[in-house]
Amino acid sequence: MRTIEWKDGTVTLIDQTKLPNETVWIKIADYKIMASAIKEMKLRGAPLIGVAAAYGLALTAFSSKAETREQLLKELEESAAVLRKTRPTAVNLFWAIDRLLNKAQKTGGSKDALAEAVVNEAQKMAEEDVETNRRMGKHGATLIEDGDVVLTHCNAGSLATVDYGTALGVIRGAIEEGKDVKVIACETRPRLQGAKLTCYELMRDGIPVTLISDTMVGYVMSRGMVDKVVVGADRILRDAVLNKIGTYNVAVLAFEHGIPFYVAAPMSTLDQSHTSEDAVIEERSPNEVTNVGCERIAPEGVKVLNPAFDITPLEYVDAVITEDGILVPEVGLKQKRKD
Amino acid sequence: MRTIEWKDGTVTLIDQTKLPNETVWIKIADYKIMASAIKEMKLRGAPLIGVAAAYGLALTAFSSKAETREQLLKELEESAAVLRKTRPTAVNLFWAIDRLLNKAQKTGGSKDALAEAVVNEAQKMAEEDVETNRRMGKHGATLIEDGDVVLTHCNAGSLATVDYGTALGVIRGAIEEGKDVKVIACETRPRLQGAKLTCYELMRDGIPVTLISDTMVGYVMSRGMVDKVVVGADRILRDAVLNKIGTYNVAVLAFEHGIPFYVAAPMSTLDQSHTSEDAVIEERSPNEVTNVGCERIAPEGVKVLNPAFDITPLEYVDAVITEDGILVPEVGLKQKRKD
Repeated sequence: MRTIEWKDGTVTLIDQTKLPNETVWIKIADYKIMASAIKEMKLRGAPLIGVAAAYGLALTAFSSKAETREQLLKELEESAAVLRKTRPTAVNLFWAIDRLLNKAQKTGGSKDALAEAVVNEAQKMAEEDVETNRRMGKHGATLIEDGDVVLTHCNAGSLATVDYGTALGVIRGAIEEGKDVKVIACETRPRLQGAKLTCYELMRDGIPVTLISDTMVGYVMSRGMVDKVVVGADRILRDAVLNKIGTYNVAVLAFEHGIPFYVAAPMSTLDQSHTSEDAVIEERSPNEVTNVGCERIAPEGVKVLNPAFDITPLEYVDAVITEDGILVPEVGLKQKRKD
Repeated sequence: MRTIEWKDGTVTLIDQTKLPNETVWIKIADYKIMASAIKEMKLRGAPLIGVAAAYGLALTAFSSKAETREQLLKELEESAAVLRKTRPTAVNLFWAIDRLLNKAQKTGGSKDALAEAVVNEAQKMAEEDVETNRRMGKHGATLIEDGDVVLTHCNAGSLATVDYGTALGVIRGAIEEGKDVKVIACETRPRLQGAKLTCYELMRDGIPVTLISDTMVGYVMSRGMVDKVVVGADRILRDAVLNKIGTYNVAVLAFEHGIPFYVAAPMSTLDQSHTSEDAVIEERSPNEVTNVGCERIAPEGVKVLNPAFDITPLEYVDAVITEDGILVPEVGLKQKRKD
């Protein structure tokens, strides 16, 4: 089931803030609404954010009343500036916007030809995302053995992509090969994407999943209940992986227990021109920590930290699974103490 | 402010399930209601559970219509059996019940003299708890430096004891010596005692506290924002510390970052006759994970793990702070890698 689709100038997507209690599809015909949806995390996940931003530009192109090619290019630049400001960490957002603007600039002909090219390119990116994830799943499946229990953090599934998923795509790939794979999903506070989204999509597909609180990661590892860890990534720097807050906890705990730690992400997530020193960590609203839906869980006025991402040095990463194959970080692996 | 008090055959205590939104005091005059309150975690924290169980037996003694000493002893045994079944992990529960029954058996004289002795012993245990925590705080304060930021997990504060607290007693002890100490509180899923209780009591006392989700522990440590970790304990075995789920995550992360990890607990928490192989980990209701108050956070029917405690091997513990002084685990410390 696709998370996002384009039809005749309207983008339809699942409002992920309503999951798992309600499956609500929203229709978006304006790039500003798309930008708000990204910012408010009605959709999230690095690959999906990229495609959604591309569709945002496609909406501008489709509905434009510009009379010239130059006017439309200017409108696209303006839309891009708004879309770029939605989430600072996911590199796919910038990658997707740059790719589409680049395509637009290179497309000759009339305003209409340009608009059509932009829409087509956005649709192509959506198709490519699914294809990329399936290839990633095939490569990643070679690392997963029959009978494995795989722990994952956050949601790097079909709900983080157009379809199939990155980390969960690896699990789907292994299952398609006939392997018996079970999943342990960390709930992933503060926004609970593991509890809400990963459990939802795995249960929908009949893949066995057990939910734990983030506090239980060490416990399940120490009891020998975890064979592998597979997570997604928002940005892979020269020296580290940026991913959902809590990924670093899981990586250190996996290392301490000698459990392989894999990152599954498309090549577009690789940002080899920067290191963790340049990383911008999005600090989100304290309300995400102090409130869970209708429930207030902390005293009024309490001081809160809410970094949305953390930094996992590549020393903790055994392999990066991409659509082009499996990369082993050049920095070399730390010796797994308990191997 | 005392968390629990005895007056004329009635025990008054804060209903901790209502904090931080409401401060509700409940009055208990029957040991069965006390057993339910412990089981439902209206009060929690190993030392407080011990005192509450002692008061439960005191309620039986105070309200008994027994005509003989032997009848009352039998009633006390029956009450003890019910109280023992409330929470399996906290050793203080069993220690307190045994101490009171022992006192009862050794007390001669009439039924009334026995009842009075039981009530007096329970009150003495409550006084001792406060005194114990203050001594623990003094010893522990020597490990805390001026300007330290101390990370703590769950609530080992005045709300986990009769007053003053164990881990938070160490922080209070350091502050009473004039040291500037700030606290980072892990929210402590699933029951959120860090968010709800630790933040509440520290803010009430004007001690600076910052709340984080459990996923952020590695992040704050990697940024150099944590100088020490101090947690409580439910049971200290020959080889490991049993404490609130998530303690082990924090211990491994502290070890990885070369941050001292201290456990503050009364001598009554020491259980040197058992090792972690004998440990019983209480598995609580899945609802604690899938629901946060009124809010459902996971799909209906999802499989859940909910161990209430985890096991931290003593190799990760730099020191155990007790009322009698600071113990350094005999197993020796792991070499802190980043020292």
